[in-house]
Amino acid sequence: MIASTPQPPYYAVIFTSARTEGDDGYGAMADQMVALAQRQPGFLGIESARDSIGITVSYWESEAAIRNWKQQSQHLVAQRKGRADWYESYFTRICKVERDYSFNRSQREENP
Amino acid sequence: MIASTPQPPYYAVIFTSARTEGDDGYGAMADQMVALAQRQPGFLGIESARDSIGITVSYWESEAAIRNWKQQSQHLVAQRKGRADWYESYFTRICKVERDYSFNRSQREENP
Repeated sequence: MIASTPQPPYYAVIFTSARTEGDDGYGAMADQMVALAQRQPGFLGIESARDSIGITVSYWESEAAIRNWKQQSQHLVAQRKGRADWYESYFTRICKVERDYSFNRSQREENP
Repeated sequence: MIASTPQPPYYAVIFTSARTEGDDGYGAMADQMVALAQRQPGFLGIESARDSIGITVSYWESEAAIRNWKQQSQHLVAQRKGRADWYESYFTRICKVERDYSFNRSQREENP
């Protein structure tokens, strides 16, 4: 569930959202969009969690890959439906990941 | 709950984690760390969600502000306890936010 990404630099899209009430097809579309994103050129990984707000972070090889995904036709349909029905509000931030480090219980120390 | 951040560029720390079982003081320390982060120089905002994994994104004016926060003494204690007890694994990514856009139901369109 934690994305396994290559050495930086790479890119991240942080999508933070507040949902409207009810599902109204949201869950099925969200699953479909994850499956579709995974097939896009330059896709590196995705992480998602939701409680009072939702945060989805997708990782990409380049800004060009992010722009292509933003314009993908089925994704455009989902974005329009999101604004019409599913989201009270959202914030999307496009970032360059400059450095990273990680920890796994088996290793006991941060890497690198 | 969605952070209100200034015009880019600014910086983000994406902290993705898998927790061990049980609370063991984690919830109280997490609340304390958010309160402490909010008092650090250069802090801009924080967003957090957890279901099967947790994602916390904090926003900062500069990389220097992020380095200072990483080295803050009470935060160092929390980081050590996190590795000893609370986290199965985590991934921390330091990013430069290059552009952003947002949506709010009252406006019907993405901004900017």
